[in-house]
Amino acid sequence: MKTNFEHYLEEKKDVFLKELGRYIHDLDIPNRLKESMIYSLEAGGKRIRPILLMASNEAYNSCPNKIYSSAVALEMIHTYSLIHDDLPAMDNDDYRRGKLTNHKQFDEATAILAGDGLLTYSFSIIADDPNLTDQEKVHIIQKLSKASGPQGMVAGQILDMEAEQTPVNLTSLENIHALKTGELLSFAVEIGAYLGEATKEELQYLNEFSYYLGLIFQVQDDLLDEFGDPEKLGKPVGSDVGNDKSTYPKLLTAEGAVAKKSEYLKLAENALSQAHAGDSTLAKLMNYISKRDR
Amino acid sequence: MKTNFEHYLEEKKDVFLKELGRYIHDLDIPNRLKESMIYSLEAGGKRIRPILLMASNEAYNSCPNKIYSSAVALEMIHTYSLIHDDLPAMDNDDYRRGKLTNHKQFDEATAILAGDGLLTYSFSIIADDPNLTDQEKVHIIQKLSKASGPQGMVAGQILDMEAEQTPVNLTSLENIHALKTGELLSFAVEIGAYLGEATKEELQYLNEFSYYLGLIFQVQDDLLDEFGDPEKLGKPVGSDVGNDKSTYPKLLTAEGAVAKKSEYLKLAENALSQAHAGDSTLAKLMNYISKRDR
Repeated sequence: MKTNFEHYLEEKKDVFLKELGRYIHDLDIPNRLKESMIYSLEAGGKRIRPILLMASNEAYNSCPNKIYSSAVALEMIHTYSLIHDDLPAMDNDDYRRGKLTNHKQFDEATAILAGDGLLTYSFSIIADDPNLTDQEKVHIIQKLSKASGPQGMVAGQILDMEAEQTPVNLTSLENIHALKTGELLSFAVEIGAYLGEATKEELQYLNEFSYYLGLIFQVQDDLLDEFGDPEKLGKPVGSDVGNDKSTYPKLLTAEGAVAKKSEYLKLAENALSQAHAGDSTLAKLMNYISKRDR
Repeated sequence: MKTNFEHYLEEKKDVFLKELGRYIHDLDIPNRLKESMIYSLEAGGKRIRPILLMASNEAYNSCPNKIYSSAVALEMIHTYSLIHDDLPAMDNDDYRRGKLTNHKQFDEATAILAGDGLLTYSFSIIADDPNLTDQEKVHIIQKLSKASGPQGMVAGQILDMEAEQTPVNLTSLENIHALKTGELLSFAVEIGAYLGEATKEELQYLNEFSYYLGLIFQVQDDLLDEFGDPEKLGKPVGSDVGNDKSTYPKLLTAEGAVAKKSEYLKLAENALSQAHAGDSTLAKLMNYISKRDR
């Protein structure tokens, strides 16, 4: 028996996938490139980022038609980052979500180009959206390029790589994850609320909420990586145990990591209340992210 | 003794490098990422694309302060494409312009991320430029993302890779180069003129001019690859001779390729006159591109 919230997640995911399809299936580009981009875009996943964006918009003045381009662009950037992250020169993963990674299904060159294509196309999608004003487009592109670029996600990736060689302390670990994972989650929450005409003050509190949400996401990720169910995750567990990579359980023990997550949850809840969204679906999404098993 | 035109090229290059430096040296990002991005951005090159953009702007209502962000963003995207193109999974080149390629100087993972960082940052640069209106920013981002994305340069890259395995005819070769090289050259010419308030009709003729300019660029590239001076080029020649890759000299003989270049030159000159820029520096740049020895 599914809960209302599970129904909500499914419904939003379906709406999102329909929008995603609209943007990608009509694209007139070389076959192999298109197949490779679609392969990773449709490889499943919870679609947490677009759903966060939709939920955040609903917490304020809901305007569905204005948010889909941002939701699709965001998921494309997330997907490109996974494709490049899985490459042999990076994490060298053969499987993701139980399917072959892009470079295993196609080849490395195609995977690099599919990632480049998704990243670039995401900016076209925002710039071409007839439902947005020029001012809104510029604001979204500023936020998206900063969140995903060398000051955001790409910085997080390189620091994460360095941390695999040289163990880091908790503060550095938080910084890495805020950049690598947190920036795109923040984009989702902020842009949903921005298009929903949240006030400047509300946006500031949402920024704080997103920061902790990113850390909650990451603690849970580390816990799943070590103790999760490989069936549900679609990938082997324990891969971080053997190497020197810093993780929450390694720095704090499993119990310490769980306690840290509770601490972040309280801070996130508080910020969300201040943003007048304490009763919104964002709170449910936060709890879902904190307890997810895949 | 340098010609006036050579002085012009040097002067514009200096102006451009100063602007480029302003955008990159103050960037507060992880050291290794920054070093890697700067390494390739400052690895030399003729800076043809930004100079084309500046010259095109001068052919209409010159507005220097408005064009630098586009010139810098364009060169960043060109540089990212070279970094990814040189990777082992793609062209596997160890040297470019006489220097080690990015992944040889750093490592593959850093090179992938430096490319991703440059691509993403280029959109920030346009979106953040205080000298542009929102309407101008959106127009530039639309053009830039289309020219460099899966409908433009990235499409050209994948078709080019496929053409290395399966020889193609002249029409396909033209299409590949129009996408792989031509789109960014077109962006340079069009955006310079657009910000200089060229008319719609002038922009249409410039689009035609750029198309042939891209092909001229590529014929000369193929000729240099086969018959050029490795010292001047900073890379070995003849690498396309041994494989099955289609090139202008292979499809048409060397004489045929030179004749084809003359044909393109006439078509480009004609379009440039119609755009009321027949006497501008764009014409000199075209001749320079057509005769360059490096």
